[in-house]
Amino acid sequence: MSRILTGIQSSGRPHLGNILGAILPAINLSKVAGNESFLFIADLHSLTTLKDGPTRREYVRAIAATWLAFGYDTTKNTLWRQSRVPEHTELAWYLNCFTPMPMLLNATSYKDKVDKLGESATSAGLFTYPVLQTADILLYDADLVPVGKDQRQHLEMARDIAGTVNRQYGKDIFVLPEARIDAKIMTIPGIDGAKMSKSYNNYIDIFLPENDLWKVVKRILSDSTPLEAPKNPDNDITFQLYSLLASDEQIEQMRAKYEAGGYGFGSAKKDFYELILSRFATERARFTELMADGNPELERELQAGEEKARAVASRTIARVRDVMGFS
Amino acid sequence: MSRILTGIQSSGRPHLGNILGAILPAINLSKVAGNESFLFIADLHSLTTLKDGPTRREYVRAIAATWLAFGYDTTKNTLWRQSRVPEHTELAWYLNCFTPMPMLLNATSYKDKVDKLGESATSAGLFTYPVLQTADILLYDADLVPVGKDQRQHLEMARDIAGTVNRQYGKDIFVLPEARIDAKIMTIPGIDGAKMSKSYNNYIDIFLPENDLWKVVKRILSDSTPLEAPKNPDNDITFQLYSLLASDEQIEQMRAKYEAGGYGFGSAKKDFYELILSRFATERARFTELMADGNPELERELQAGEEKARAVASRTIARVRDVMGFS
Repeated sequence: MSRILTGIQSSGRPHLGNILGAILPAINLSKVAGNESFLFIADLHSLTTLKDGPTRREYVRAIAATWLAFGYDTTKNTLWRQSRVPEHTELAWYLNCFTPMPMLLNATSYKDKVDKLGESATSAGLFTYPVLQTADILLYDADLVPVGKDQRQHLEMARDIAGTVNRQYGKDIFVLPEARIDAKIMTIPGIDGAKMSKSYNNYIDIFLPENDLWKVVKRILSDSTPLEAPKNPDNDITFQLYSLLASDEQIEQMRAKYEAGGYGFGSAKKDFYELILSRFATERARFTELMADGNPELERELQAGEEKARAVASRTIARVRDVMGFS
Repeated sequence: MSRILTGIQSSGRPHLGNILGAILPAINLSKVAGNESFLFIADLHSLTTLKDGPTRREYVRAIAATWLAFGYDTTKNTLWRQSRVPEHTELAWYLNCFTPMPMLLNATSYKDKVDKLGESATSAGLFTYPVLQTADILLYDADLVPVGKDQRQHLEMARDIAGTVNRQYGKDIFVLPEARIDAKIMTIPGIDGAKMSKSYNNYIDIFLPENDLWKVVKRILSDSTPLEAPKNPDNDITFQLYSLLASDEQIEQMRAKYEAGGYGFGSAKKDFYELILSRFATERARFTELMADGNPELERELQAGEEKARAVASRTIARVRDVMGFS
């Protein structure tokens, strides 16, 4: 039985790259018998880069709606907003007091930011980010934390800090979490062929209204092979994206059309657009429903998750307060 | 009408120096018509230096019992333990994200610690201490914060951070606190004549049982003038300490005895010891009562204070969450 903890960045609405590369694999992992998923929207972390309140609120809602629309099962698992469980910041303070300055000053992610932006553009929030992340993990006695390579060092810090506290008080207060580095990391191409990413502005938001979605799909980069000529599907971004969503049969059919000639990129884009609409019909409808003004369902789901999360977090905090003399 | 915020270090049981130099002046200030005192025991801050749980618990209780024994009026004012109001650490996180790294890296108190202990002995808690302090102040819309000279820079930081957030959101979310630097800072001599301080181990704990108290008073430094000889009271530590507690009449009487000769330091110490017992009879009795095992009064007082503090703190946090998009 593994408790898997995942923090979701709340720096934007999830796009197709997030959905295929992170959300669907995480939902599949949560369905494995014996696994229990703890999934939080890291809105406190987002304050290090995003200051605007209404934007954060919209992103957080969209993220929650996406996971729910794709079938994240909140009866078995737990989904919550980090900022609604005050134990995160409380534990972060305690852990700050056990985190040696050199550990943070030497963190690669911090040094990269200083190199890129200059020290004066970095904040104490950015600097102590790994400590809040450690609190996120330790609060829930997580066994496994799926992380990208860039987060590997942060997980080592979490283990170090947990070990320091456990040794200080001679007790196993915290579970030492294991990193789970994904072997096959799927890279989803954006509409320009580079990795799909919000910061490259090359992403496909599958929840857009039909017209807006078509406008984005139309912008997928293609070469200038004329309509009549046969085309190599393997060099084409539209085909690559189509292949990610289509059945094997559909893929073979489209490959044949490319190779036969007389099938233009405009038609391929139209087919890809139609595929998005049909493949994600249920999810699009559910997302729109959850996001609708006046529908209390999303807020209700999150609040229920917050209650479940607090029940676990408050037990951990009680152990910590007890040994540290705050009870 | 001024709201005065005071944080009490919880790094030890209060001694005579603390009582005369800080506690009584603060209680007097709280009694001035129109003043309202918010007084918290800074137990979260103490974790930067003190790791032992039972010791912290005892110090916190002793501090609360001292203030109450000396007549701090909790019907008019508010007394609480910082760690019991989670809004302190929550606000500290938000403020971290608005605190530029150079502000903390250049803080005198931090640089002093690095010079003294080396960087590897400093923690992220020590480093971000001024941000938690800022949260302590801003949470309660404090107008006035009495500070020693060494804390002046931290108050400037609090004003800077508050101003940054107010400007960012174009709203007066936080009150900008004013420092109140005490003009006459009373220095109470310890039993060796140096400033009375826990770290010099030269302090008088007036709440000790009589025997133990006498043992400490007996250790007050004196010179070797023989019993029969006239003595200069102004050079003598016992006389100085006695003068701090005695009436003008008592002081004149003791001065006469010193100058007449035939009055030894042992007798002077005995008189000082007796004066402590009589002058603080009520406070000693009340302290012992409040600290007694099984007396729920102290805990009840603190919990009532925590409720009052949370009522104020939660209103501030609601304003902050609202503009930052966490509500």
